[in-house]
Amino acid sequence: MSTVPAAQDPSPAAPVAVDAMGGDNAPQAIVEGALAAAADGVSVILVGRRERIEPLVAGRAGAAAVEIVDAAEVIGAGDEPVSSVRAHPEASMVVAARLVREGRAGAAFSAGNTGAFVAAAVLQIHRMCGVLRPAICTVLPAVPRPVLLLDAGANAEVRPEHLRQFAIMGQALARELLGVARPTVGLLSIGEEPTKGTSLVIEAHRLLADDRSLTFAGNVEGRDLLMHKVDVVVTDGFTGNVALKTAEGAGSAVFATLRSAVGGSLRSKVGGLLLRRDLRAVRAALDPEEYGGQHLLGMARPVVIGHGSSGARGAENAVRFAARAAAGTLLAQIEADLGVTRSPAAD
Amino acid sequence: MSTVPAAQDPSPAAPVAVDAMGGDNAPQAIVEGALAAAADGVSVILVGRRERIEPLVAGRAGAAAVEIVDAAEVIGAGDEPVSSVRAHPEASMVVAARLVREGRAGAAFSAGNTGAFVAAAVLQIHRMCGVLRPAICTVLPAVPRPVLLLDAGANAEVRPEHLRQFAIMGQALARELLGVARPTVGLLSIGEEPTKGTSLVIEAHRLLADDRSLTFAGNVEGRDLLMHKVDVVVTDGFTGNVALKTAEGAGSAVFATLRSAVGGSLRSKVGGLLLRRDLRAVRAALDPEEYGGQHLLGMARPVVIGHGSSGARGAENAVRFAARAAAGTLLAQIEADLGVTRSPAAD
Repeated sequence: MSTVPAAQDPSPAAPVAVDAMGGDNAPQAIVEGALAAAADGVSVILVGRRERIEPLVAGRAGAAAVEIVDAAEVIGAGDEPVSSVRAHPEASMVVAARLVREGRAGAAFSAGNTGAFVAAAVLQIHRMCGVLRPAICTVLPAVPRPVLLLDAGANAEVRPEHLRQFAIMGQALARELLGVARPTVGLLSIGEEPTKGTSLVIEAHRLLADDRSLTFAGNVEGRDLLMHKVDVVVTDGFTGNVALKTAEGAGSAVFATLRSAVGGSLRSKVGGLLLRRDLRAVRAALDPEEYGGQHLLGMARPVVIGHGSSGARGAENAVRFAARAAAGTLLAQIEADLGVTRSPAAD
Repeated sequence: MSTVPAAQDPSPAAPVAVDAMGGDNAPQAIVEGALAAAADGVSVILVGRRERIEPLVAGRAGAAAVEIVDAAEVIGAGDEPVSSVRAHPEASMVVAARLVREGRAGAAFSAGNTGAFVAAAVLQIHRMCGVLRPAICTVLPAVPRPVLLLDAGANAEVRPEHLRQFAIMGQALARELLGVARPTVGLLSIGEEPTKGTSLVIEAHRLLADDRSLTFAGNVEGRDLLMHKVDVVVTDGFTGNVALKTAEGAGSAVFATLRSAVGGSLRSKVGGLLLRRDLRAVRAALDPEEYGGQHLLGMARPVVIGHGSSGARGAENAVRFAARAAAGTLLAQIEADLGVTRSPAAD
């Protein structure tokens, strides 16, 4: 990967390169979300099949802030990540990442095949200097306030030093995204004692405890992911991905059970009608769309991954999120916290 | 451990040895639950401080089927498992396990410190012949029907062959407990393809796929734990414990959010009142107490672990569960499926 030329520096108000073809509801929902952000001043490049995108943009509010870059191919949700990215250099998500590398865009977003988009980003955009592994950082809708979880699936197997870097990157994002001045960091394990967990976790605990740049709160457990205890939870990508999907499944199970309960008696139906607004609010509060996407942290430029089921609101939030990260100090902050020199690409 | 004498064979209607002192609501809730099972014909030995247990039993229905065995000590929730079990041979959970080894009881139950109870069981009761590692098997209240998950925390690190044995043991329990004739088994991973996951998972996938005694459905993901896809999900004890606690936390988060939403307007309050019964039903459907406890599978005798927060109903269900396993064919079935000869202790 060291032979890939460094990403070019984007202009100050560089647009967000949006993979218009990625996700279950693409291109409609993605284009609609991008237009909503564009109408609010975010400049956007929509990447994908021009003949499908143009009719969705024409005459809409925000159309003036949108450019279309044609990309003939699309990587599907079921395609093998690395080989499909190599085989399809003109796929929309690959082109979106390449626009960032070329400096034509300041950040990239896709709600398509996550593994493929991570591969495209790693192949096209440099990792940040000194970062060993990029990590997927997701925002969990915890009670009473959100929790950042990383790695949510980029690296199935990691070393303790990787977890230390994840902690530093997650802490920087928590400051920026959640507005917490001194975010606390926990290490996901199966007990609070430093001796609990796998050998990886026990060793990582020592590294995190010794790092003075972190506000390390020790081990946390699965239940602390949705009942806020710390601001940032660090784990390997296997455990993080299982935990994230377990939480999603649990939410679906509760609402499925509620729906079937509320369908019963007249009393229940009336109660359900009266509570409809509240139940919707609960759903919304627990909805990952609120935060628009996941950050692939550790890249030289902001890379935002949308949920496959992203609707227009999710896409809009993700595009805003990417634009904010591109314009802001997040990446510089991460580099400073990691103690690495600023990546050549960003000078 | 090979120097420990083999567990003695219990009599046909051997009682369940119940650690009366273990759990947040002990001894009251535990004694109450045990009495309810005893009133229904289950014979029980309550182990703990006689002066605390006797007043709770005296004159109650079921008291006739209950024996009390005095145990002076109690292992606390925060005590280090192995060392506290070794240091306190007269602790209630250790005595409960010893009664099983001595053939005075047919099964043991505790809702106390899980790690300590597992250690006490392993030290006092033999593993089943041929079993490499015992595993904690938990019943998840999935939609539309329950899912068994193992290992839920006994072994933070495992080898592929351990996962294969977990699959066989879980399959036997699913037949017995869920009444499914041919339970399906899934391997927890971060994608359905056999190539997804850690090297452990990839290797275990091969072993499970090659085992003709299993109905292996391939990899499953976190979301399938509470939205039923297979009957049994196999994983290492670290991932399993994180997933289990994440699901518990997610349930708590949904209900906490619901409660605060329903407290608002008059409309919401009336709706909440009308729906109260349904919301309780949802809670109950998702309540782990329904299944009473977790099985420590792979031991020569049934060992049932209660949730620390077990109430009387949870304890009652767990005691019934233990009695059923002691009287039934579960252990013989596991031995047959594993292809091992019946443990000497049970001949």
